[in-house]
Amino acid sequence: MTAFPLPPGSTIGILGGGQLGRMLALAAGRLGFDVAVLDPEAGGPASRVSAYEVVGAYDDPAALAELARLADVVTFEFENVPAAAVEHLTRLGVPVAPGARALAIAQDRVEEKTFLNGAGVATVAFAPADDAEAAREAVAALGAPALMKTRREGYDGKGQKWVEHAAEAAAAFEAVGGKPVILEAPADFVRELSVIAARGRDGEIAVYPMAENHHEKGVLRRSFAPADVSAETAAQAERIAAQILSALDYVGVIGIELFELKGGRLLVNEIAPRVHNTGHWTMDGCEVDQFEQQIRAVAGWPLGPTHAHSRVEMLNLLGQEAEAWAKLAGEPETRIHLYGKREATPGRKMGHVNRLRPL
Amino acid sequence: MTAFPLPPGSTIGILGGGQLGRMLALAAGRLGFDVAVLDPEAGGPASRVSAYEVVGAYDDPAALAELARLADVVTFEFENVPAAAVEHLTRLGVPVAPGARALAIAQDRVEEKTFLNGAGVATVAFAPADDAEAAREAVAALGAPALMKTRREGYDGKGQKWVEHAAEAAAAFEAVGGKPVILEAPADFVRELSVIAARGRDGEIAVYPMAENHHEKGVLRRSFAPADVSAETAAQAERIAAQILSALDYVGVIGIELFELKGGRLLVNEIAPRVHNTGHWTMDGCEVDQFEQQIRAVAGWPLGPTHAHSRVEMLNLLGQEAEAWAKLAGEPETRIHLYGKREATPGRKMGHVNRLRPL
Repeated sequence: MTAFPLPPGSTIGILGGGQLGRMLALAAGRLGFDVAVLDPEAGGPASRVSAYEVVGAYDDPAALAELARLADVVTFEFENVPAAAVEHLTRLGVPVAPGARALAIAQDRVEEKTFLNGAGVATVAFAPADDAEAAREAVAALGAPALMKTRREGYDGKGQKWVEHAAEAAAAFEAVGGKPVILEAPADFVRELSVIAARGRDGEIAVYPMAENHHEKGVLRRSFAPADVSAETAAQAERIAAQILSALDYVGVIGIELFELKGGRLLVNEIAPRVHNTGHWTMDGCEVDQFEQQIRAVAGWPLGPTHAHSRVEMLNLLGQEAEAWAKLAGEPETRIHLYGKREATPGRKMGHVNRLRPL
Repeated sequence: MTAFPLPPGSTIGILGGGQLGRMLALAAGRLGFDVAVLDPEAGGPASRVSAYEVVGAYDDPAALAELARLADVVTFEFENVPAAAVEHLTRLGVPVAPGARALAIAQDRVEEKTFLNGAGVATVAFAPADDAEAAREAVAALGAPALMKTRREGYDGKGQKWVEHAAEAAAAFEAVGGKPVILEAPADFVRELSVIAARGRDGEIAVYPMAENHHEKGVLRRSFAPADVSAETAAQAERIAAQILSALDYVGVIGIELFELKGGRLLVNEIAPRVHNTGHWTMDGCEVDQFEQQIRAVAGWPLGPTHAHSRVEMLNLLGQEAEAWAKLAGEPETRIHLYGKREATPGRKMGHVNRLRPL
């Protein structure tokens, strides 16, 4: 049985070997931990900065057994890890954080919003639909337009479609894949914000300053942090984060995407049970960034401070934009982070820059 | 032939796999580079956060050939790499930075001081001695007391002895090993300072704010940075750094240890052609730390900014002191860095903390 706090020299297992895993591994390395990465592909961004690499599917029992042998605790870099993998690791005696419940909720948009409302956190109105006729009825009940999303596995705007009239619902249902969906009422928001928060094994909660986020084609383009928000809005976000983290008995970092309505009320758009793209600004704006915070939380360490020491504009480098690395590296106010990905396919997240200004 | 600037995805080779190599590897990882570490021992601090590990002696032709096959450029984490290894790699077509000349100078205290004086940089008075009788004559000429040091391979106060009278010189010569030595006149210094500087492949020079350093038993205990120095002292240190870097046609980060005399004049005590323990404060006090700066320099990237955003007290964690990690991790002003070393033998550098205060 793993005892916490986990001493340096222990091994942190990570399910998923992309850029989030890489930045987690670099943070773990600073604290003296070893890292073991399980990913279906060999030689990915995270494994190339880690002590151990396990290549296999997330539901491959042999790969999971190998990870369990290597790791003292396991976390994940993305929310589409099969719940069965987490249960399997738990049965093998390795604690996994955040837990299976947070994962299950984040994997299903209906479960997610149902959980949030149950925890006293507001979202847009929504209705589930398992077939085309149910989708038509849901749009009729919510009112058009409504946003249709697949219940599971959508990300970065994929698997989404606006339904302008109830009569279009059946066609939209087929267009997004003919699988169970959620219909969401539109949020009349003035801007998109997010809050990154963490909860330790002792229940301690730490919340970073909020970020204001700008998306293009469903993909995060820029974040500005600390966002220019009122003290009341910041307090509202902190309450929301605390309600969610406590209701889930959560351990680790969570990303909470928010809609700010006219008048300042916040609705939760979605939650991600992991380090989050809108928290990349913390790498250069805070003393302890979201990656070290996640390692601290899952290792049972005290959480670090979350205040900002600089104002940051975070810009994602998508596809060939990362080819501007030489120019970006020469800008004095720009800190550059590159993920070591081999192929710059269009829209792929290749890196990001944090541009700093005094607070 | 390697073309500079080196694109992300290239591999940085590092000779030496200790904590300095580890922190270099973590910095290289942030910029999207892979790292290959050559070290005589397997599984050391640096290789556990690196994509490639080559195990072999620094003068093993097979190991050097393997490193040359993997790496696009090679650097080193300590100055006692054999000059022949650097020459061998260069013959194999891999650029090594900083170059063989900086390494040769740093490996021999007589060469070092001779070079410094030749570059117009002041040191204490000194004299070489290859045998016991020459040592006696040197002490007589310099005046007692004089500090005897082995010409080569001393570090952290090892291989040093104060000679109080010329008559004791012969015994001291045998006591430090019976090998060629240097005799140094005492420096009547008021404190020990250091300056970390870097030079890029284009000749650009960047200098960090100075640190004030406190040693115990020859080992660095604490650094305070930015040091409380006058503008004239800071300018003097910048001139010294520029003279040394330019005279060596240097590429990379250099650590320059200084004595501050009454009245403010600076003498150079020694130079280290690498990232330096007195520069660890930059990890939490500056936007671009000395490790990223070294990677930028050897990769031919533009150098990063060097100003401090926080005041830092750096404390080395020696031996079992690192066992206080849980307490240290809970101090809000303390950033903790651990090196992943397995055995905490007495006095071994296991990690360091940077304690932050506003500027």
